[in-house]
Amino acid sequence: MEKLTVVKVGGKIVEENDTLQHLLVDFLKIEGAKILVHGGGRLATKIAEQLGIESRMIDGRRITDADTLRVVTMVYAGLVNKKIVAGLQALGGNAIGLTGADMNVMRSEKRPITTIDYGFAGDVKEVNTAAFLLLLQNGYIPVLSPLTHDKKGNLLNTNADTIAAETAKALSKLFDVTLIYCFEKSGVLLNENDDNSVIPLINREIFDDYKKSGVIQGGMIPKLDNSFQAVDAGVRQVIITKASAIADNWGTVVTGNYSTNKAYSTTSAISET
Amino acid sequence: MEKLTVVKVGGKIVEENDTLQHLLVDFLKIEGAKILVHGGGRLATKIAEQLGIESRMIDGRRITDADTLRVVTMVYAGLVNKKIVAGLQALGGNAIGLTGADMNVMRSEKRPITTIDYGFAGDVKEVNTAAFLLLLQNGYIPVLSPLTHDKKGNLLNTNADTIAAETAKALSKLFDVTLIYCFEKSGVLLNENDDNSVIPLINREIFDDYKKSGVIQGGMIPKLDNSFQAVDAGVRQVIITKASAIADNWGTVVTGNYSTNKAYSTTSAISET
Repeated sequence: MEKLTVVKVGGKIVEENDTLQHLLVDFLKIEGAKILVHGGGRLATKIAEQLGIESRMIDGRRITDADTLRVVTMVYAGLVNKKIVAGLQALGGNAIGLTGADMNVMRSEKRPITTIDYGFAGDVKEVNTAAFLLLLQNGYIPVLSPLTHDKKGNLLNTNADTIAAETAKALSKLFDVTLIYCFEKSGVLLNENDDNSVIPLINREIFDDYKKSGVIQGGMIPKLDNSFQAVDAGVRQVIITKASAIADNWGTVVTGNYSTNKAYSTTSAISET
Repeated sequence: MEKLTVVKVGGKIVEENDTLQHLLVDFLKIEGAKILVHGGGRLATKIAEQLGIESRMIDGRRITDADTLRVVTMVYAGLVNKKIVAGLQALGGNAIGLTGADMNVMRSEKRPITTIDYGFAGDVKEVNTAAFLLLLQNGYIPVLSPLTHDKKGNLLNTNADTIAAETAKALSKLFDVTLIYCFEKSGVLLNENDDNSVIPLINREIFDDYKKSGVIQGGMIPKLDNSFQAVDAGVRQVIITKASAIADNWGTVVTGNYSTNKAYSTTSAISET
């Protein structure tokens, strides 16, 4: 199967021209078919503030009322997406910016109201693999903004990590998929204050051990849970790294392959048990 | 050759949900391949004002400084474009929103500074017919926002009428193209106060006569000049009408076909009254 790399970066990346330029150059070094997924939350909060719209978050998720939906549509699909697309085009990458509504690439449903009403937030229900295939086979590079639609005329705000994971999972039926999550550190760290203590490879056994011992904790746990879900759904590997390392395949590799991983295990104590 | 209809509507159309809904339903009634081009100037002016950015216009053209470029990118490529795309998708039209940067569909150059510095305004240099062909042949409906790029990483603000005309002209090599300009009246009028006085057909002879007699004047002259340029470049016909009439093929037809037009000429009717 042909290789496909899905890279997720934060929206912060477009706020500094130099950082963006580096990312785009590195991204284009990745061989084979590729998809870039971006966030934009920080910039959305800033523009919302300038427009006098208050940003409300619960557990890191934005409460998306009608006014906020207008802001994130402007910022994600407009400002951030088009800056990345124009930047890639300048470097010779034939990028195309998409929300879930474009080509109907990703349909979602408005998140049901429970104790929290997230407003116009979408839970992904369907990925249009045929549309992605048409673009990828013709050499285009999809650049996805974190918006989906319900196919009833409404755009819905959708977490960029989720967009990346759902895209990677759906396309793993057609491609040999690597999913790269970029964040501010070099990988999953043994010591959170030492960026050189990257755990090179994590499988479920290692994950369970590190969770028990408290090495892996906090926000990294849902990130790794999502990674294992992707691997279980057919994605070859998930790499957790920093944006500046995407071309180097460096960082923490999350894989479902138990036997291989044993050899990579970083602590003898773990591999012996 | 297969038929292609390029429809240009003002951005005002998305400001009222009912009007937008009518337009999208009518647009989808048009048979064969189709492309929708939208404006958004009024909304851009409104959002700019909310952000404390002054809108400066010269002869109806926006002066696009860096802050204004950010606003029009948000409003055109984000807010307006995605509302139309999601609306078409809800009606079963497989729409895809594009700026000139996406798939490199339209490359422009920053307008040279003469007596006026228009800022980040682009003059169209190249239309990527292969990209449009791929989408149209696969049943997609491109929805174009009035932004192009210079392939050096910069988005450029570009008049929506121009985007529509350049698209229609370039694609007339591959399709039998009709270009429809929507505006607030039913067509080019004999009497500007009577919306029932539509001139059904205009060729260059008729245009010259009406210009001399003063029937056609003001802003309608550049609109018709553009129309004749499109017809000269291979577009079959340009229809000038109101948005509510696009499915009815009603309005003023601008064509280069002299002999045929004679039969339709309204001149005799005028001399009789």
